[in-house]
Amino acid sequence: MPQVKVIVTLKPSLLDAQGRVVKDALNNMGYADVQQVRIGKYMEVEVSGESGDLDAEIKAMCEKLLSNPVIEDYRYEVVL
Amino acid sequence: MPQVKVIVTLKPSLLDAQGRVVKDALNNMGYADVQQVRIGKYMEVEVSGESGDLDAEIKAMCEKLLSNPVIEDYRYEVVL
Repeated sequence: MPQVKVIVTLKPSLLDAQGRVVKDALNNMGYADVQQVRIGKYMEVEVSGESGDLDAEIKAMCEKLLSNPVIEDYRYEVVL
Repeated sequence: MPQVKVIVTLKPSLLDAQGRVVKDALNNMGYADVQQVRIGKYMEVEVSGESGDLDAEIKAMCEKLLSNPVIEDYRYEVVL
């Protein structure tokens, strides 16, 4: 059964407030060489692969539900 | 500057309630062939690489802050 690994990240031009907080926390814990942290989402989607065009289906799912295309980018990898 | 890509996932034996909700939503949107969704976190950490042992540093950061080792697994990849 194909498994699709989807990574959704905030667009690079946008400030990642959550990542900033994690970076500050790591610096305060003594990891002074951490320069930047950006946080995204990771999803593993198992599909039965019965639909014809898996690529088109995944793209539609990412654009309609899994990511917000206004502020986020997505990329995915299909593991057969 | 080395970039570390960290993926944190819920341990496979644990029920992923958030993933379950996303799976149901996708099914309701007409993507009937989606069998399972599991949701994790994705982090990009930029380090200046001045500390000696980058691997040990990343493992410590993952275990102390970036993941909850009781319920989550982590893996990472260093991009030089």
